Amino acid sequence: MYRTHTCGELRQENTGQTVTLAGWVQTVRKFGSISFVDLRDRYGITQLLFGESLNQLLDEQPLGREFVLQATGKVVERTNKNPQMPTGDVEIDITAFKILNKAATPPFTIEDKTDGGDDLRMKFRYLDLRRNPVRRNLELRYAVNRSARNYLHDNNFMDIETPFLIKSTPEGARDFVVPSRMNPGQFYALPQSPQTFKQLLMVSGYDRYYQVVKCFRDEDLRADRQPEFTQIDCEMSFVEQDDILNMFEGLVKRVFKDVKQIDYADKVDRMTWNDAMIRYGNDKPDIRFGMELTNLKTIFEGQSGIEEAKAIFEQSGFKVFNDAETVLAIAVPGASEYTRKQTDELTEWVKRPQIGMNGLVFIKCNSDGSFKSSADKFFPEDQLKALAGICGAQQGDLILILAGREERTRKAASELRLEMGERLGLRRKDEFKLLWVLDFPLFEYAEAENRWVARHHPFTAPKPDQIATMINNDPVIRDAANYLSHPYANIKANAYDMVLNGNEIGGGSIRIFQRELQEKMFDALGMSKEEAQHKFGFLLGAFEYGAPPHGGIAFGFDRLCAILGGSESIRDFIAFPKNNSGRDVMIDAPSVIDEAQLEELQIQTDLKS
Amino acid sequence: MYRTHTCGELRQENTGQTVTLAGWVQTVRKFGSISFVDLRDRYGITQLLFGESLNQLLDEQPLGREFVLQATGKVVERTNKNPQMPTGDVEIDITAFKILNKAATPPFTIEDKTDGGDDLRMKFRYLDLRRNPVRRNLELRYAVNRSARNYLHDNNFMDIETPFLIKSTPEGARDFVVPSRMNPGQFYALPQSPQTFKQLLMVSGYDRYYQVVKCFRDEDLRADRQPEFTQIDCEMSFVEQDDILNMFEGLVKRVFKDVKQIDYADKVDRMTWNDAMIRYGNDKPDIRFGMELTNLKTIFEGQSGIEEAKAIFEQSGFKVFNDAETVLAIAVPGASEYTRKQTDELTEWVKRPQIGMNGLVFIKCNSDGSFKSSADKFFPEDQLKALAGICGAQQGDLILILAGREERTRKAASELRLEMGERLGLRRKDEFKLLWVLDFPLFEYAEAENRWVARHHPFTAPKPDQIATMINNDPVIRDAANYLSHPYANIKANAYDMVLNGNEIGGGSIRIFQRELQEKMFDALGMSKEEAQHKFGFLLGAFEYGAPPHGGIAFGFDRLCAILGGSESIRDFIAFPKNNSGRDVMIDAPSVIDEAQLEELQIQTDLKS
Repeated sequence: MYRTHTCGELRQENTGQTVTLAGWVQTVRKFGSISFVDLRDRYGITQLLFGESLNQLLDEQPLGREFVLQATGKVVERTNKNPQMPTGDVEIDITAFKILNKAATPPFTIEDKTDGGDDLRMKFRYLDLRRNPVRRNLELRYAVNRSARNYLHDNNFMDIETPFLIKSTPEGARDFVVPSRMNPGQFYALPQSPQTFKQLLMVSGYDRYYQVVKCFRDEDLRADRQPEFTQIDCEMSFVEQDDILNMFEGLVKRVFKDVKQIDYADKVDRMTWNDAMIRYGNDKPDIRFGMELTNLKTIFEGQSGIEEAKAIFEQSGFKVFNDAETVLAIAVPGASEYTRKQTDELTEWVKRPQIGMNGLVFIKCNSDGSFKSSADKFFPEDQLKALAGICGAQQGDLILILAGREERTRKAASELRLEMGERLGLRRKDEFKLLWVLDFPLFEYAEAENRWVARHHPFTAPKPDQIATMINNDPVIRDAANYLSHPYANIKANAYDMVLNGNEIGGGSIRIFQRELQEKMFDALGMSKEEAQHKFGFLLGAFEYGAPPHGGIAFGFDRLCAILGGSESIRDFIAFPKNNSGRDVMIDAPSVIDEAQLEELQIQTDLKS
Repeated sequence: MYRTHTCGELRQENTGQTVTLAGWVQTVRKFGSISFVDLRDRYGITQLLFGESLNQLLDEQPLGREFVLQATGKVVERTNKNPQMPTGDVEIDITAFKILNKAATPPFTIEDKTDGGDDLRMKFRYLDLRRNPVRRNLELRYAVNRSARNYLHDNNFMDIETPFLIKSTPEGARDFVVPSRMNPGQFYALPQSPQTFKQLLMVSGYDRYYQVVKCFRDEDLRADRQPEFTQIDCEMSFVEQDDILNMFEGLVKRVFKDVKQIDYADKVDRMTWNDAMIRYGNDKPDIRFGMELTNLKTIFEGQSGIEEAKAIFEQSGFKVFNDAETVLAIAVPGASEYTRKQTDELTEWVKRPQIGMNGLVFIKCNSDGSFKSSADKFFPEDQLKALAGICGAQQGDLILILAGREERTRKAASELRLEMGERLGLRRKDEFKLLWVLDFPLFEYAEAENRWVARHHPFTAPKPDQIATMINNDPVIRDAANYLSHPYANIKANAYDMVLNGNEIGGGSIRIFQRELQEKMFDALGMSKEEAQHKFGFLLGAFEYGAPPHGGIAFGFDRLCAILGGSESIRDFIAFPKNNSGRDVMIDAPSVIDEAQLEELQIQTDLKS
């Protein structure tokens, strides 16, 4: 045994004991004829005292940062206690030590705040992993994993492993493929999710399945995407949407409780996709704060005041509003005193290419009851007041108004709302607010191909009362310009997303479980009977032998951990992440392989230079 | 909600309750104007009673096997109770029912004993998975998974996910590779194990790591091998061999207790590799029974009587023994009365190509104290008696003797011992006997290349007292004929296998943690400095920055489950296994992929027709 205790567990009550510790040298401090060494492991730091006799030995075998040290001595009470450290009441008066391994000077400091840049820390990830913030991330990840598994186990779910070497069924994201040596010319695909397998398990009668499982998507990467990522993947039989929502908000609440000691007592809010789009301009609203959008002129319905606003606009002769497809307003509380400089800066912010607006109109609802606007010359004060009323603004608010093409303006307003929430400190990292978004459209229109694509995936069922609409209508879009008038455009999916603080952390649906309807779905997506049979014949076949009603959900495990850890980037919560080119710079993968390997696989590279 | 209860939970105390069940129709039995339907789900079977009024409806909507049915009714006590079924005291007097889905007649019966052949059951795996024996296997698998995780969690191990898209380092088994679209001409490899990553985690200070993780090997398949398989993968820092053996026999004992309700109180036996080879002829002995081998003439040491046996052989003039490199004997208890037919059959058995011996010599140690042998004419009775004494045979035993080339004879004797154990009923499926095999050779000699290969893997440390032998000697083998006299031939590894009932269920080692020694190891395996740097530079680099002493183990999860479930085949314990050609015949993978996919990946197939 190299140690009797870890570096995190010795306390005052251990004084007098002889102990052996092993760990890494964090710091060495010399004070005349004695030295103090902070010894670190994943459990904590303990101070070692090298007295006069040993101090000399330290001169012969100097200790450097990150040396691996084994040291034996007696636990003694410190005269100079450190209340910041759990072990701060004691130190070890060392009687013997051994350097187990030396260490070169690390390329960056192993401290909470390091001097290492991103690239360097990725290359030496094994050193970055020693730092407390990174270690805490992985510990949080494990805690979430454990908590979710316990909840699922307690609810009769069974972990069943599904295969990694499966079949390529190109659609949606790109597959990673694996050439088969034993079946030359053929390829496996790595799963984008265990979707069809978990459905087969339902057909097999395993009514509650889960898996914490790696999935793979060969997509161009952004900061928050990885070619391999982890899902908490779940499926249930004999359930309706409500059963699933209840079960899985329970899961997230359990994780909150186990991992963050948060008692999330409230029932999770539920909002239709339609409402989310109208009120927040996107389908994963952050509901930690208000500042909902006001549609002053729009194709959406359900808000009062639109007629009044339109009348004001027409009277004003303000072309910016009158020519716009959409006009959206946000009332920012307490911002009426923004200076010219601040409103100019906001105008620049919305003009950035990522946002893409031409400008920003504001109305200051001053605390003295007066109104002031950047479009003063078009709107007399009483009309500004009327608009403020429509927006539900209070004295002291600053109303920000965007106008332009429908989709861009909606996105911009949504971004602007989040930005203002951020600036006002309303997006607190320690506040967690869940939301179910329901009733997504089943189909999206793919303009280039003039066809429908599945918004979630082709196995998602329509809402029960819309199955007939789907079955009884021809999916072909004869009038592309008016695709919105096709009956399919209004079919809602029996699908749901779980949103946490404005991030989608999970999504799922009730599945199609009848062969007929599944075939109609493939047909609706423009798949021929032969193609459907070739790709998904096994699933269609399975539906013939007694498939139960079922549905499920998959949580993005990396993202869930990131949000719980208060970070934007999933990469911080993955032990060995890849960079934006899909490279692991530490091991230098991917890499060129031997010609002999290619030959055995009967493939050749075919570089387009 | 589709159901209020499962099909496995209703009991006498539920009588009077109105319940709704959902499940699959197992059987329909008509008795005049009423019908009984057995409804099945993964929790059990409940009997439904369709009385006169509903019976008529059943005529209009007949129920077939495997139909998915929802039925509501009152729980009533059965007049004709079935004590074989947990729900056998009650039945449900149905008041309403709904067919949720129809089912075509399954291609084989969904019963414990099915009429379906292997191929059919693989193709319709989703139906085979409904059968109780298969379901019980997957339930056992989940129970083992859960138990192992709980034990590791209780002992401070952390589940940390390692990447699946890594780097190909060809050696040992073949890698599966994955072409990278974003890095054309380059490939990832799927991990054969997370070996180097878990070692890096030790360097990072995560002193107790585990993972239940898929691994991949592109090898030609046998019945008990799969291209993707699951390991319980573990690693610890600041430990010596003994710490690991204690920790992980604890794990298996916990699994025995949780899953099989077996209290494995004994300390697990430990045996050196050398002893295992001498006493049992192989390195994973089944110690549920004795019948150890007696070496009558061998290069192995440590047994008495060899000199005496040699003298007897020389005197006999029996060329079969005298010309043989090795003569091995097994005393089979109570088999002295075997008939001529039986001994002939055994002789044929050892002559089969899989065993490959030329013949079998036997000595019957009759209960009357006389001896009889198939080589009577060479050995007078007193010499037979002397040989029996050397073999430790008792009256009533049958001694089986094999002679020939060292390796083949040893293997044959080992197989013969297992076969006789099987025939005598000494290999009971409900008896579990663990064994640690220790001190494996560090190197094996690869004749074709005249070089050393790592017996375990290149990261395994030699026994501490043999590190000097390794460092101080040139690995080059100058005299191939006498490679055994090279100092490397006798270096023992700090490695261990866990054996259960004659199967290796886990293996591991204390690892090299010094750069210098690791470089020497790569050198010993014939790897140039450049090659070592290219393949394992990240690990060598990591060893420079304070690597702690560490070691670990990996359990073959599929095999462990199979043995605990009393089966020889791991395939029975995998939800969706592949066949011997690496095919998933259910989904029909691998398969040809689109030309467009190949083009995007910048590869082409290059079939050698």
